[in-house]
Amino acid sequence: MDKSVFRTLTYGMYVLATRNGDNYSGCIVNTVFQLTSEPPIIGVSVSKDNYTHDLIMKEKTFTASIISENTPVAVINTFGFRSGRKINKFENFQYKMLPSNLPYVTEKTCGWLECEVMETVELPTHTVFISKVLDSGVLDRETPMTYAYYHHVIKGNAPKNAPTHLTEDVPDPTKPADENDAGDKTNATAGAAKEKRMAYVCSVCGHIYDGDIPFEQLPEDWMCPTCGEGKENFILKEI
Amino acid sequence: MDKSVFRTLTYGMYVLATRNGDNYSGCIVNTVFQLTSEPPIIGVSVSKDNYTHDLIMKEKTFTASIISENTPVAVINTFGFRSGRKINKFENFQYKMLPSNLPYVTEKTCGWLECEVMETVELPTHTVFISKVLDSGVLDRETPMTYAYYHHVIKGNAPKNAPTHLTEDVPDPTKPADENDAGDKTNATAGAAKEKRMAYVCSVCGHIYDGDIPFEQLPEDWMCPTCGEGKENFILKEI
Repeated sequence: MDKSVFRTLTYGMYVLATRNGDNYSGCIVNTVFQLTSEPPIIGVSVSKDNYTHDLIMKEKTFTASIISENTPVAVINTFGFRSGRKINKFENFQYKMLPSNLPYVTEKTCGWLECEVMETVELPTHTVFISKVLDSGVLDRETPMTYAYYHHVIKGNAPKNAPTHLTEDVPDPTKPADENDAGDKTNATAGAAKEKRMAYVCSVCGHIYDGDIPFEQLPEDWMCPTCGEGKENFILKEI
Repeated sequence: MDKSVFRTLTYGMYVLATRNGDNYSGCIVNTVFQLTSEPPIIGVSVSKDNYTHDLIMKEKTFTASIISENTPVAVINTFGFRSGRKINKFENFQYKMLPSNLPYVTEKTCGWLECEVMETVELPTHTVFISKVLDSGVLDRETPMTYAYYHHVIKGNAPKNAPTHLTEDVPDPTKPADENDAGDKTNATAGAAKEKRMAYVCSVCGHIYDGDIPFEQLPEDWMCPTCGEGKENFILKEI
């Protein structure tokens, strides 16, 4: 099996959001897909490790806000890489409330869907929520962000619990061969013998520490610049 | 509900293919999505009206070939708009066979997935095939075709039985307002009072006849230039 072909499947980027008592929580997903047109039914795959997963299981309703190319990257970093168990992800972003008391993000998003879970499909690591679209709206006239744009232009990665997560040694067949070989990464498929090195890597989001101060000398309250998680989540590994 | 927001969900384009006795059949879908990474599991939504649907129900295995921007449009028109009940869709295209005797299309496609159905989800008009990826391969180093590219650049439409089918009066919020108003289409959301006209429209693929010869005078064996279906499938309607 050549897993690099999974990099050629096309996805968008979405903020899923639901209620959490008197507050709200949400996460980033790239697998929102329409399953039928009449009535409009969508599917979405969410990791069982994700706090939003447990809340959707309980509430049975959620919104999906459609991220555009102009949605601030901070929205993706906060909703995608930080845990709603620890912070209120909505705190620093613009959002609106539906009459059903569900929030949707309005940071240059293309629009929103309000959904009700009809059926769940249990898979080993994820649950697929098969959901009826109750209502929907258009917001900004923006170009929807594709996962390819996020990966190639913004240089973002999928976190470990994304349905589409691939380790960094899986090359991207849509890029020229020399780009896959660039940098210090090992290209497993091409078999190029690149020099490896040790680096501190964030186990939450994959950020590679490359600062001037030696990692060990960073203050204890230093946080990952990508996902905001603490220094204790970094692991020294060969890259 | 503002259905035009569905135009901002992002999809790729794929040829699904399976066995049909000693032959093969296939169709175009835009809803192939990865559900879990380890093990690799995908979902795909297929219309119950589709011949390939019935064959996958029987065979429980299929391939998905990932269409690129350089895949000939004839592949999409043949696999997307013609019926495998009437023609051998593979006849005019390049394809290869897997050891399991399943075909995949090699016309500038990015790669292929070989899948085995684990579970089906029955929806009113479609079945969602939750399927294990048994094997996969990379073919050409091409840019995957997004549905947006197909819709905006190639000017293609989703057939009536696609999960993402929208009637032509649903505007596209990713286009400038004047593009949505252009031509003779009525823009239901903007409420622009455009002049309507009567035209012959293919009920299979939505092609609008705009030739110099009056439609009634076309020979009886004339075929729709988009989907190849006969003259009898055209309906005179207001557009």
